[in-house]
Amino acid sequence: MKSTIHVAAAALAASLLATHAAAQETGNAEAGKAKAALCAACHGPNGISINPLWPSLAGQQPVYLAKQIRAFRDGERVEPTMQPFVVNLTDQDVEDIAAYYATLSPCP
Amino acid sequence: MKSTIHVAAAALAASLLATHAAAQETGNAEAGKAKAALCAACHGPNGISINPLWPSLAGQQPVYLAKQIRAFRDGERVEPTMQPFVVNLTDQDVEDIAAYYATLSPCP
Repeated sequence: MKSTIHVAAAALAASLLATHAAAQETGNAEAGKAKAALCAACHGPNGISINPLWPSLAGQQPVYLAKQIRAFRDGERVEPTMQPFVVNLTDQDVEDIAAYYATLSPCP
Repeated sequence: MKSTIHVAAAALAASLLATHAAAQETGNAEAGKAKAALCAACHGPNGISINPLWPSLAGQQPVYLAKQIRAFRDGERVEPTMQPFVVNLTDQDVEDIAAYYATLSPCP
C-alpha cells in the first residue's frame, strides 16, 4: 500500500509538472510539419505507423512527444534507428514537431 | 548519403526482424484486458491518455508495445513512474497486455 501511495504521489507530481510544462509549450505545428518530413518515412505520412516496431505519433500528447524526442536526442532513451534523425534538432524544432504530430488525427 | 543509406538499411533490417517477431506473437488480448487494469489509471480506460506526460496506447503496434513494456521492466528504458507497474510482469503478461491495447481504437 505504501508503495502504491508513493507511486500515486509521484504520478500526481509528474502530472502537475506536466501541466506546468504544457503551459510553457511554444511549439508551432505549421513549422513542425515541414521539419517532420523525414519522420514520415518510418512513422507514416499521417503519423500512423504501419511497421510493427514503430509507434504511431498522431494525436499523442505534445509534452510526451517532446520529452521522448529530447530523450532520443540527448541519449537518455537509446534507439540507434531514431538517433540520427533527431541528434541535430534544436529545442524549438522538437517543440514544433511535437506540436505537429499532436494535431494529427490518430484514427486510421 | 552514405549515412542515409546506412540508416535505411538498418531500418529495413529492423523491419524484417519485426515482421519475424510479429509472426511469433502469442499475446491474448482477452487475458491482457484483465492484466491491464492498473494501466488504465494513467493510460486511460480506453488506452487514450488525458495526461500530457503519458502516451496513448490504443491501437499501437503490439510488437512496439511489448518491446517498450519489456524495456521498462528490464531497466533498458528508465521511467520511475512505469517501473513499479511492470517489474513483475512475465513475458506472457507483456504479450497479452500489448495484444489488448493493440485491439483498442485510437479514435477519441
